[in-house]
Amino acid sequence: MANTVYYQELTAFCAKVMEGVGCNAQEAALVAKVLVEANARGIHSHGVARLKRYVDHIKQGMIEPNQVPEVIFETPLTAVIDGNHGVGQTVGEFAMQLTLQKAQATGIGMVTVRNSNHYGIAGYYAEQALEHDMLGFSFTNTAPLVVPTFGKHMLLGTSPIAAAIPTAAGDPILIDMATSVVARGKLELYDRLSKELPLGWATDENGVGTQDPARVLQNMTAKAGGGLLPLGGEGEMFSGHKGYGLALLIEVLTAGLSLGSYSYETYQGKGKVAHAFAAIRMDLFGDPAAIKAHITKLVENLKNSDKAAGAERIYIHGEKEYARKVEALQNGIVLDDKTIAALQKLAAEYKVALQLAD
Amino acid sequence: MANTVYYQELTAFCAKVMEGVGCNAQEAALVAKVLVEANARGIHSHGVARLKRYVDHIKQGMIEPNQVPEVIFETPLTAVIDGNHGVGQTVGEFAMQLTLQKAQATGIGMVTVRNSNHYGIAGYYAEQALEHDMLGFSFTNTAPLVVPTFGKHMLLGTSPIAAAIPTAAGDPILIDMATSVVARGKLELYDRLSKELPLGWATDENGVGTQDPARVLQNMTAKAGGGLLPLGGEGEMFSGHKGYGLALLIEVLTAGLSLGSYSYETYQGKGKVAHAFAAIRMDLFGDPAAIKAHITKLVENLKNSDKAAGAERIYIHGEKEYARKVEALQNGIVLDDKTIAALQKLAAEYKVALQLAD
Repeated sequence: MANTVYYQELTAFCAKVMEGVGCNAQEAALVAKVLVEANARGIHSHGVARLKRYVDHIKQGMIEPNQVPEVIFETPLTAVIDGNHGVGQTVGEFAMQLTLQKAQATGIGMVTVRNSNHYGIAGYYAEQALEHDMLGFSFTNTAPLVVPTFGKHMLLGTSPIAAAIPTAAGDPILIDMATSVVARGKLELYDRLSKELPLGWATDENGVGTQDPARVLQNMTAKAGGGLLPLGGEGEMFSGHKGYGLALLIEVLTAGLSLGSYSYETYQGKGKVAHAFAAIRMDLFGDPAAIKAHITKLVENLKNSDKAAGAERIYIHGEKEYARKVEALQNGIVLDDKTIAALQKLAAEYKVALQLAD
Repeated sequence: MANTVYYQELTAFCAKVMEGVGCNAQEAALVAKVLVEANARGIHSHGVARLKRYVDHIKQGMIEPNQVPEVIFETPLTAVIDGNHGVGQTVGEFAMQLTLQKAQATGIGMVTVRNSNHYGIAGYYAEQALEHDMLGFSFTNTAPLVVPTFGKHMLLGTSPIAAAIPTAAGDPILIDMATSVVARGKLELYDRLSKELPLGWATDENGVGTQDPARVLQNMTAKAGGGLLPLGGEGEMFSGHKGYGLALLIEVLTAGLSLGSYSYETYQGKGKVAHAFAAIRMDLFGDPAAIKAHITKLVENLKNSDKAAGAERIYIHGEKEYARKVEALQNGIVLDDKTIAALQKLAAEYKVALQLAD
């Protein structure tokens, strides 16, 4: 099939490009893995379409390859890390591993990070807690794309909350959600399709709800006012202040607790993204097997309950993504034309072949 | 003013009613304090309008007065508490105090609770961390009032997230938000005003969005299908699955980690509400004064940024509530006619005078 690339091939390709731009083999492989994981799960906004941007950011000096993250403050339960403007995945992996070590030793680990870069899907890190019978959490601030309730300018990130929860059977629960109502990519999609936006997604240059995606995207690029709305939409009618509160909480947990840069200060010169990670051992609350079985009961009861008219299934968070990954490992990953074209350009630039599936 | 009661008077009145129904003086005073705090902050849904329900629940045996919460599992960082179907505020206060003690000793405390009852405003507990330079968290499941995305029945609670964050100046940040798009009380208000609901608040007996508040309320009471929607509304267009994910996370943190009852199992016979509390010492991440000053910078930058057209102010979470409390302490609390009438009935039943402000 045209536009289909096998998982391993795509991973190897991305790794070679990252090596081409100066990353050591370990770092290149990690970035490739996290990007392709996103595609495999159907989260294309965080997949290989970002490879070009990573390359550009390295060329611009925003991302510095091969950095060793530095522990600048530490207690038995916690640490603060300076990412030294390194590759987000390298910094994130280092921080999550430290989080897990601390949780293993004490029961709960929590690590905050400053001066990092885009780290890919937040869920990738949270998920690493699962095999240890821990709850895992991962948060990050981002470029400023979201307006606070009643505000005109993009001061907040799309700052995701990721939470991974072990279960006794079937998939784990993996919540991985931006705290904005939608991602910028959704606006780009509507723009390409010349579709009107639903009211409640974005605001115009006056900070007022609009249905015009091109206008919002233009204003966002020019920082002319307006942007994405927090989960809950415009004003307080649908509780947009709650999404704003979640975004605020994540600014505090990430940049606040690392004395790092807030979303509105990131992506200026060097990478200054802030993350936070946490892991909680389930045996702090009793027998992990009993707790996991109890959580599985909740999952089953939700999934098996009656559906709304017209709905076929009730999903648990992570379920769709894990199912897509099984599919992708078997049949490859289908990329859109634009992404394929961008990858082919990188292939030419870095003299790496991109082999499409037959 | 008619319908105005002074803070102290209202607190003393509620305490006497709770004593009348069998609570010891300490428990009665605590319940009264938490209820009146809600009114003072303008959160009337969680205020003294609930007094009658507490009284009824005690009479029905759902709430058992004067219970001593029992620690059934414990580690240096954590505990699991059985509330023994006691008064929610007694259980919540005990659990939050234990959380703070553990955080004081180890850096992070986390306590889960089963078999409790309605504990009032979640923020009341989270807030207790502030004076210790800790971040405080409080979560609870609730009666089942919320449908999962694509589901027909109310399986989830309005399960709030409360997070209290110390700052260097001005009010602390106090996020206290139900994970449903609105509370049931909002539907009751629209019903009284014969107003149509905005689409995205609630679903009908088929699990489909409706604008008819009376129909939803009737169905909710009869458990005939439909109910409140999670934050983000119906389906996935405005990311209702995110609010559903938050509600799911809170079920796990509360009932999951305490082997307690899920929202859909609460309020059957004896009180079986589950809570979770956490506190994190700021000095686990460096100098608390520096961190608080850094957070205050975020708060100031948000508040001082340009407003959307037609908006006068950007609020920080908790700000409105703290301002209302200053007002209420000075001028008293204004209650609606229905609440005053209910309190007067309790006054007659328990032979306690309710003194209105002149």
